[in-house]
Amino acid sequence: MSAIRHALNTKREDDFAAWYQEVISAADMAEESGVRGCMVIKPWGYGIWERMQRLLDDRIKAAGVQNAYFPLFIPLGNFTREAEHVDGFAKEMAVVTHHRLISDGKGGLIPDPEAKLEEPLVVRPTSETIIGDAMSRWIQSWRDLPLRLNQWANVVRWEMRTRMFLRTSEFLWQEGHSAHASAEEAKAETMMALELYRSFAEEDAALPVIAGEKPENERFPGAVETWSIEAMMQDGKALQAGTSHYLGTNFAQAADIHYQNREGREELCHTVSWGMSTRMVGGLIMTHGDDDGLRVPPALAPFQVVILPMLRDKPEDDALLAYCEELRAMIAGQGALGEPVRVLHDTRPGKAATKRWDWVRKGAPVIIEVGSRDMENGAVSLLRRDALWNAETGKPAFQSPTRELAAQSISTILADIQNGLLVEARERREANIVRDIDTMEDLAAHFGEDRKYPGWVEVQWSKPTGEGLEKVVEQLKALRLTLRNVPMHVPPADGTCIFTGEPAVERVFVARAY
Amino acid sequence: MSAIRHALNTKREDDFAAWYQEVISAADMAEESGVRGCMVIKPWGYGIWERMQRLLDDRIKAAGVQNAYFPLFIPLGNFTREAEHVDGFAKEMAVVTHHRLISDGKGGLIPDPEAKLEEPLVVRPTSETIIGDAMSRWIQSWRDLPLRLNQWANVVRWEMRTRMFLRTSEFLWQEGHSAHASAEEAKAETMMALELYRSFAEEDAALPVIAGEKPENERFPGAVETWSIEAMMQDGKALQAGTSHYLGTNFAQAADIHYQNREGREELCHTVSWGMSTRMVGGLIMTHGDDDGLRVPPALAPFQVVILPMLRDKPEDDALLAYCEELRAMIAGQGALGEPVRVLHDTRPGKAATKRWDWVRKGAPVIIEVGSRDMENGAVSLLRRDALWNAETGKPAFQSPTRELAAQSISTILADIQNGLLVEARERREANIVRDIDTMEDLAAHFGEDRKYPGWVEVQWSKPTGEGLEKVVEQLKALRLTLRNVPMHVPPADGTCIFTGEPAVERVFVARAY
Repeated sequence: MSAIRHALNTKREDDFAAWYQEVISAADMAEESGVRGCMVIKPWGYGIWERMQRLLDDRIKAAGVQNAYFPLFIPLGNFTREAEHVDGFAKEMAVVTHHRLISDGKGGLIPDPEAKLEEPLVVRPTSETIIGDAMSRWIQSWRDLPLRLNQWANVVRWEMRTRMFLRTSEFLWQEGHSAHASAEEAKAETMMALELYRSFAEEDAALPVIAGEKPENERFPGAVETWSIEAMMQDGKALQAGTSHYLGTNFAQAADIHYQNREGREELCHTVSWGMSTRMVGGLIMTHGDDDGLRVPPALAPFQVVILPMLRDKPEDDALLAYCEELRAMIAGQGALGEPVRVLHDTRPGKAATKRWDWVRKGAPVIIEVGSRDMENGAVSLLRRDALWNAETGKPAFQSPTRELAAQSISTILADIQNGLLVEARERREANIVRDIDTMEDLAAHFGEDRKYPGWVEVQWSKPTGEGLEKVVEQLKALRLTLRNVPMHVPPADGTCIFTGEPAVERVFVARAY
Repeated sequence: MSAIRHALNTKREDDFAAWYQEVISAADMAEESGVRGCMVIKPWGYGIWERMQRLLDDRIKAAGVQNAYFPLFIPLGNFTREAEHVDGFAKEMAVVTHHRLISDGKGGLIPDPEAKLEEPLVVRPTSETIIGDAMSRWIQSWRDLPLRLNQWANVVRWEMRTRMFLRTSEFLWQEGHSAHASAEEAKAETMMALELYRSFAEEDAALPVIAGEKPENERFPGAVETWSIEAMMQDGKALQAGTSHYLGTNFAQAADIHYQNREGREELCHTVSWGMSTRMVGGLIMTHGDDDGLRVPPALAPFQVVILPMLRDKPEDDALLAYCEELRAMIAGQGALGEPVRVLHDTRPGKAATKRWDWVRKGAPVIIEVGSRDMENGAVSLLRRDALWNAETGKPAFQSPTRELAAQSISTILADIQNGLLVEARERREANIVRDIDTMEDLAAHFGEDRKYPGWVEVQWSKPTGEGLEKVVEQLKALRLTLRNVPMHVPPADGTCIFTGEPAVERVFVARAY
C-alpha cells in the first residue's frame, strides 16, 4: 500500500470548515464578490444550481404548480402590516430610499436628495406579503381555489456573518405559495411540498434526508406548522435543506385573502409556503465532497463525462482529437438517468494531467483520458470519481476499456455512481445517529469535547410548549445543540422525556447545526 | 358571410395601444403590482418567458457560453469609475442606503438611522461593471481567453413612464459578457450573439427581424459598435428586440481587464455584451396578437394543446373524462418541433364555452373540445387558433377528426402553425417597408397624419457623424421618427443621401419605434 497524495491541502478530519472553503475554491464554484455578503457563483457552481432548478422545477410542474414572477421590491407598508400579526419578523433587510444618482461635484456620485422615495422599498427577503396582495386580488370564489404558485427568484436578508452558499445576503431560491379553501387541503399541500423536497433530495441530489415537523420554537414566524428536511453533513452537523409551512389563516388575515364558499359565505383562505435555496449546493459539498474535492451526483453534474485528449502540440494531435470527437459523439448518443448524457470534450490548451486534477476537484463523475497509446489500442483510460484511487499503488485507478465499451457502459456507470453516493451518505448518517440516550448527562457526554463529529441523537420528549420549551432550548443551547425535527414514520414514543422526565409523546432529533 | 364577434372589445385598427393592454389582461399574462413601475408576471405570461428562456438558453449553451451569477448590488464606486469613461450613463437607479428597519414608535417601520450603509449600493441596471471586476480577477494570460459568460437575472432601471413588458422598472433578461484577446475575436462574438438572437427570434418566436448595426447616436454608452435585431409590430412601429455590443477596450480599461499575451506583454482585453429581455414578450403580443387575443407560436406555448371536456355535472361525465384522458395521453406521446407535445387536460369547473374563449384569448395553438356526441362518434372538435373563424358562418371553424387522427396530426398542425405565423408576419412586414423614398418631402408625406400605420422606410444615407448626425436626428425627431439600424445583406448604396444630398454609403431603416 502506497500513500495517496490527495488533491486538496486540507482534509475533512483536520479542519472541516477550512476544507469546505477549499473545495469551493478548488472546484471553482464561487467566490466573494467584494459586495458585502454577496457571492459570485461561478460557472461550475451555477451549473449545479441550474441542474437543481431544472429537476426540481420538473417536479413542481408535474405537481401542477404554476410559476409566476412578483416584484423584487416590497413597499415598507406591507411589512408594517405584517409586523402587527407576526412578532419576531427579522428586520435585517436592504432598504431602497432613492431612485437617482447625481454628481457630488467632486467627481463622485451620491443619491439625489431630490429623488428620495416617499415610501421606502424593501428588497424582498421572502414574498409572502407581495404574493398575498396578488392572491387577495385574484381570489373571489371557491372556484378560484386552490391557487398554487411558485417563483424562482433572488432574495436578500442582510447577514452579519456569511458563508458561501450556506448563508449569504443575496441568495437564489424558489418559493411556493398557495391558498386553499380548507385547513385539510392546505395541510395536504404542505406535505406535498415536503415530499417533493424529500424525493428531489434523495433521488436527484443523492442526499438522504429526514423529513419531519420542526418544534414550535423553530417555526417560520407566523406559521402554524413548519416542516423540514434535514440532512447530515460529514462533520455530523445538521443542515435544514428545505422547509414547508402551513400558515393557517394568519397571512390570509393580514393580506385579506378570502373567498366566497359554495354556500355564498365569505371565508378566509388557508395558505402555505415552501422554499429551497442555493444553500442546497452547500449541503451537496458537505455530503459528497472528499479530500480530493467535490463529487457531483451525476443527475446534477453540468458535465457527467469529461474527455481529455493528451495533446502534445504535434501533428499527431489531429488524429487524437478526431478519435476523441468520435468518442464524444458516441457518448452523447447515450442516455443516463432519463436524459441524454452530458459530455464535454475539453480541448483547451494545457497539460492533460493538470486538467485531470481540475476535473477531479470539480467532481465530474467520469473522466476519460486518451493518449496516443490508448488510441493505437482502440482504447481509453477511464477514471470514476467515486473510485478515484488504487489503494495498492496509491495512484489513480484508471480502467482501460475499449472505446466502444467505454461509451456503451457510461449509462450504467453513471447510474451506479448516483446510487453509490446515496448509499454511502445514508450509511454514514445511520452510523452517526444514536437512539439510546435517555438522560441529559449522557447527552452532554456524547457531545463532549472528545468527540469531534458526534452526529445526531434521536431522543424521546414530552413536546413541551411555551416556557417549558424555552427551558429545553436553553439546556440544549448550553451544549451548542438545537432541536432539529420530529421525524415521520418512526415507532411511537415508549419512554420518558429526556428533558422533563414526563412521559414522552414523540421522538425528536437533537444536533449541532448550520 | 356573417359578422364575426371577436373575443376582445378593442380592435387593433381602432386603438393599438388600448388593444395591447386588453390582450395582456384578457390573456391573463401580467398586471400592475402596485409597486411603482413593477409588474406581476402571471402564469401564462411567465410560462411564455420560461419557454423563451429555455430555448434561448439551449442556444447559448450550444454556443459554448457558460452561465454564472453575479450580485444584485453594485457598490456606488463602480459607477463613479464608469462615469469617468462613459458620458450619458443613465442615472435613474434604485439606491439601497440602509440595511435594517426599526419601529418608528407609532406602529410603523422606518429605515434604522444606525444601519446606514457607508457606501450606498445600486440595484444593478446592467452588470458590465461588476462582471468586469470579476473578469479582471479571473484573467491573467491568453490561456484564460476567451472568457464567455451569460447571466439570467432581474435588473432595475427607474422608469418614469412604464408599459407592461415593454418598459418596466424591474425586468428580467439575460446578459452575455465576454472578454477576448483581439478586436477580431470580440467582433466575431458580437456577431455570434446577434445571429443567436436572429435565429431565436425567427425560428422559435416566429418573429421576422432585421439584423443590423445601430447608428452612432443609438449606441450603448461606451460601446464602439452596437448591433440590434428590429421587429415590426402590427402598428408599423419598430421594436428593438435584442442588442449586441462590441465595447472595444473601453470597459476593459475602466475595470482593468488585461492579459499577458503569448509574447509576455500585458494587453487590454476587448469586451462584448449582449442582452434580450422580457420586452420580447411584448414584441410577441404586438406581432402575433389579433382581435381575439394572443396567438402564441407553438414553440413558445406553455401548453400547445388544451383539451376541454364539456362536463355537465352528471354521471356521464366520468366516461367523458376517461375519453379525454386517453386523448391527452395519446397527444403527450407525440413530438412536435423537436420536443414532446405539451398538452393540458383542463378539468377545472366551469362551462366549456367560457373556458374555450379563455384559451382563445390566451392563444393556445390548438383547442380540442369533446362533448358526449363527439365521444359517441369516436371523434373530437378541433379548433386551430390560427384559423379560428369560418368566414361563411361567422362561427368558430371547428374540425371533427376522429380522436386517433387528431392525436396523430398534432405534430403536423403545430409545425404548420409555427411556420404560418412567421410567414404571415414576414409578409406583413415586407408589405409595410417602402424602399423608394429619396427626398425628405416624400418621407414627411409618407409619415403624414393620414397614414395610421405607415411602417418602415429604408433610405440611403451618407452616414454622417458628430454634428452632421445630430442634425439628421433632429430632422427625424420633428417627424417623430428614429434611425433603426443599417441592415446586413442588402445591395450596396447606389444613390444620394436623403438627409445631406451627398453620395450615399449605405442603407438605413427609418421608423417610429417603441
